[in-house]
Amino acid sequence: MKLAVDAMGGDRAPAEVVRGVCEALEFLQDDTIVLVGREPDIMEHLAGSNGWQGRIEILHADEVIGMGDSPINSIRQKKDSSLNRLVELGATGQADAVISAGNTGAYVAACQLGMRTLPGVLRPGIAVAIPRPQGVSVVADVGANVACRPQHLYQYAVMASVYYEKLFHKKNPRVGLISVGEEASKGNQLVREAYELCQADSAMNFLGNIEGRDIFSGSCEVMICEGFVGNVLLKVVESLVGNLMDTVQSLAQKQIPEAAAGLVPITREIQSSYDYSLYGGAPLLGLQGLSIKCHGSSGSQAITNAIRTARNLAYDHLNEQIVERLNR
Amino acid sequence: MKLAVDAMGGDRAPAEVVRGVCEALEFLQDDTIVLVGREPDIMEHLAGSNGWQGRIEILHADEVIGMGDSPINSIRQKKDSSLNRLVELGATGQADAVISAGNTGAYVAACQLGMRTLPGVLRPGIAVAIPRPQGVSVVADVGANVACRPQHLYQYAVMASVYYEKLFHKKNPRVGLISVGEEASKGNQLVREAYELCQADSAMNFLGNIEGRDIFSGSCEVMICEGFVGNVLLKVVESLVGNLMDTVQSLAQKQIPEAAAGLVPITREIQSSYDYSLYGGAPLLGLQGLSIKCHGSSGSQAITNAIRTARNLAYDHLNEQIVERLNR
Repeated sequence: MKLAVDAMGGDRAPAEVVRGVCEALEFLQDDTIVLVGREPDIMEHLAGSNGWQGRIEILHADEVIGMGDSPINSIRQKKDSSLNRLVELGATGQADAVISAGNTGAYVAACQLGMRTLPGVLRPGIAVAIPRPQGVSVVADVGANVACRPQHLYQYAVMASVYYEKLFHKKNPRVGLISVGEEASKGNQLVREAYELCQADSAMNFLGNIEGRDIFSGSCEVMICEGFVGNVLLKVVESLVGNLMDTVQSLAQKQIPEAAAGLVPITREIQSSYDYSLYGGAPLLGLQGLSIKCHGSSGSQAITNAIRTARNLAYDHLNEQIVERLNR
Repeated sequence: MKLAVDAMGGDRAPAEVVRGVCEALEFLQDDTIVLVGREPDIMEHLAGSNGWQGRIEILHADEVIGMGDSPINSIRQKKDSSLNRLVELGATGQADAVISAGNTGAYVAACQLGMRTLPGVLRPGIAVAIPRPQGVSVVADVGANVACRPQHLYQYAVMASVYYEKLFHKKNPRVGLISVGEEASKGNQLVREAYELCQADSAMNFLGNIEGRDIFSGSCEVMICEGFVGNVLLKVVESLVGNLMDTVQSLAQKQIPEAAAGLVPITREIQSSYDYSLYGGAPLLGLQGLSIKCHGSSGSQAITNAIRTARNLAYDHLNEQIVERLNR
């Protein structure tokens, strides 16, 4: 198996990406990695490592898409960017999985434009893992598709269920449709029609509508929404968790200064549990080939996790099973 | 001025509602209150108080809409419910403001069905105040309108700006449109068209699109979204803040047990800062007459705050100014 990684993508690239790739060699056995990006930069960080020769290939790409670049413009203008070259490897089947911690908008757009969808899939969707007190759930779509139709939502429910099963080795996840009330009649037209489609699929463990308050405390392992809602949700949560932990820490500093230092590992632990890189990144479900997005702030550990997850999902036939379920 | 309060609405009604009303008498001067609900229940809680005679009227209503009742069915079937009678007082102009901590869906539906909109207003929207490190912001709509059009979003921006000015006595709040990216081209069609409308209004301090991560940390005092997005957002935040504070507390109990007790006031303070009742409840903007929704768990203090806010907004000509701005 060949796994391709964007060496230049993310706030801590290339150093942390290269380190993460080297660490992944420990479990990769016969699989090889392609590091895509500026060869001199990659070599600078590989130079000190051993045992990578013959297991890591380098595909030179001269340009780099920055984290703040305009997505569509940058993928059009920077043809020889690591991100475009990476996606080409996935699109042409030269890599079984592609992984990037780079500019999210550019990466998602490049994958959507460059890679084909699986047979039967109408639109790809991004899935992320989020923590609940009772375990981890998967939410899709969190931003690939902001012009969502009922059939798309239904397909996200199927694809995210298969992804959940592969990721956590648990069968039949309970599926909830994110809405503004629990009754089937609640929500907008999109959600009401998607409800019917999910309800009609006897192979799906569909629990019905859930509300915002159930996302982090309810019983669904898979939660479905359109990309606009999911994107706002994901970004709100990420910033809110950070803010709240900062507030806890700064109030503690003032009111119980003797305990503030002891709190640091606690607030850090909580904050990091909301980082989806923990769970191997966020896949763009529904594409031919596997495409994984890591968080922009990914360190080596997050890159290693993503490589492990991508490899496992590929060996576990994630895509084949998505096709089989959708075309049943 | 006459302010009507649903004595039976909320998890802690009628006791806390009646207490909150009695406490409000201190600042109400010449204004009177109508308590709507089961007279025997109201009298039981009023009996111990003094000085309310002649200042509090009771309008008996035999039925009560429960917090878990189906909104539309309950307002249709329970004609003589406190909630229906309350809204009638607002709709007929017998009360200048109506306030309830009861079933949100039923209250909003009853107001939308029973009360007329202000001249020029297409659809009412619910505004809530949320905390940011730099101050408090207002978000609208958080659930009144799940079939939103660009013109509705634009009107929410205008109405929520006027509301913010009245609530915090600050002019020209910065307005952000909640989207999935900052560029004008980002988002779905609804947001792109609403962007144009806001941009074209030179009287609005419009900053453009904001993302989920800016909601609790950005610089906008007024944030606009469709009711579906706002409702999910509000409920996610409410449950997430509670969960996170519980997690901080329980990890502290295990890892730094000597400091856990000292943390309780801190986690409580943070949690309560996210309760919109603090800021006088959530108004349903755009209706003739003022309609305020208090949180279902409101205690007497929240009810008192809502009465104070309703009175101030009415004396401050909130509605007149909304009409003036929209029809400029």
